[in-house]
Amino acid sequence: MAPRWKAKGLESKALADPMSKIVLELQASLIRFEARALLSGCSALLALEAEQTNLLNRACFGRLIVTAEKDKHWFHLGMEEAFYLCHSLKCLKIIGEDNCPMNDEELWRDMKSKKGTFPEFYKAYSHLRKRNWVVRPGSQYGVDFVAYRHHPSLIHSEYAVLVLSEGDDDANGRLRVWSDFHCTIRLCGSVAKTLLVLNINKNGQGTVSLSCLEHYDVGERTIMRWNPEHCQEDQTIGENGIK
Amino acid sequence: MAPRWKAKGLESKALADPMSKIVLELQASLIRFEARALLSGCSALLALEAEQTNLLNRACFGRLIVTAEKDKHWFHLGMEEAFYLCHSLKCLKIIGEDNCPMNDEELWRDMKSKKGTFPEFYKAYSHLRKRNWVVRPGSQYGVDFVAYRHHPSLIHSEYAVLVLSEGDDDANGRLRVWSDFHCTIRLCGSVAKTLLVLNINKNGQGTVSLSCLEHYDVGERTIMRWNPEHCQEDQTIGENGIK
Repeated sequence: MAPRWKAKGLESKALADPMSKIVLELQASLIRFEARALLSGCSALLALEAEQTNLLNRACFGRLIVTAEKDKHWFHLGMEEAFYLCHSLKCLKIIGEDNCPMNDEELWRDMKSKKGTFPEFYKAYSHLRKRNWVVRPGSQYGVDFVAYRHHPSLIHSEYAVLVLSEGDDDANGRLRVWSDFHCTIRLCGSVAKTLLVLNINKNGQGTVSLSCLEHYDVGERTIMRWNPEHCQEDQTIGENGIK
Repeated sequence: MAPRWKAKGLESKALADPMSKIVLELQASLIRFEARALLSGCSALLALEAEQTNLLNRACFGRLIVTAEKDKHWFHLGMEEAFYLCHSLKCLKIIGEDNCPMNDEELWRDMKSKKGTFPEFYKAYSHLRKRNWVVRPGSQYGVDFVAYRHHPSLIHSEYAVLVLSEGDDDANGRLRVWSDFHCTIRLCGSVAKTLLVLNINKNGQGTVSLSCLEHYDVGERTIMRWNPEHCQEDQTIGENGIK
């Protein structure tokens, strides 16, 4: 399926302003700002000034919380987003609920304890983000994430992403049966998305330590509708007298 | 995945000699010849002269049986092939094991009794054949069929086809779990095929009579590998300093 830009000219706008560059700018700016987020349940809260707010919006991390404060903008980061900024981009410090900064291992254990699927979900999230895909929550489509080629203001999301864990250690046994995919594809189809299934293979590494992560493999599969007439010989299809 | 022609120039050869035309010629020739096949277990045996032999080979139905006979060529037709020539193309009569000609309903009941999945398999087979795909047995790839855009001497097969039945009446419960697809895709991937899953929805019609067939729907889905770098912004992928 071809990318669906929201208007003419937006493709060249996106090309001139690649996501990789925006994320690098965000990274540098958050490091300069010494950004800190407060861990709060299953999310992290982050207060930023105008420059970082603008970059976080352009890079499409988190969700702006509307407050009455003028100079300070509050962001709500999901677990995978917070951990990515912290562990992968190394541009965010996370302050624990006891008001102490947390290191990556502590954060990994905390997030894992709050969300059993965090190791697989984070692997999937970071796998796509590192390759310059914009990754957003997918719950409104009944999937785990949605992935965009650039900022969602420019382009419709291309992929509805499901995260599965290979083997018997599947954290929750979700959606492993074909009929479930079938329903999800229908839902995706109605909003012109392709279903992307990411299989996380832990290679027997488990989730005890953060260092397990680098041993995980990601297998990628797309599932999409197929039109049997699509690639056929000529215009006489269906007119050959066969009933 | 682009079609893989076996040599240069074969694509234009195929375009000049479309499969729909070959099948029409075969149909006319078998009708003139008053072709009859003998039902024998799960297949039908057919003796033909040179003209029909040539057309059956070009249209890629059945398998030639090597015999010492010079003027007569014996073909072995699979159940779906025999029923398609008989019921869809109306160019073949089937002689039962009691030496009497069988009508379509009798043949339907006989094939169904010998192979529980025959109704779904036939729907899938005819669905593709009617749209000019060449459909061959897929057992060597661990699937139900393989589908070619033209004759297998010109082009590699493009699709490894799995036939599934929607709902709880799945005849055999095969391959409904994602991990099974996963293995099949690996196998297909190694021979550059895309997995095509055909979901046969009987719409509550069952399989009692041949007339049920026209109420079946076919849902088509492809499953293929996806490369996250494939459609990315530029050549800087992976070089943006993110680890």
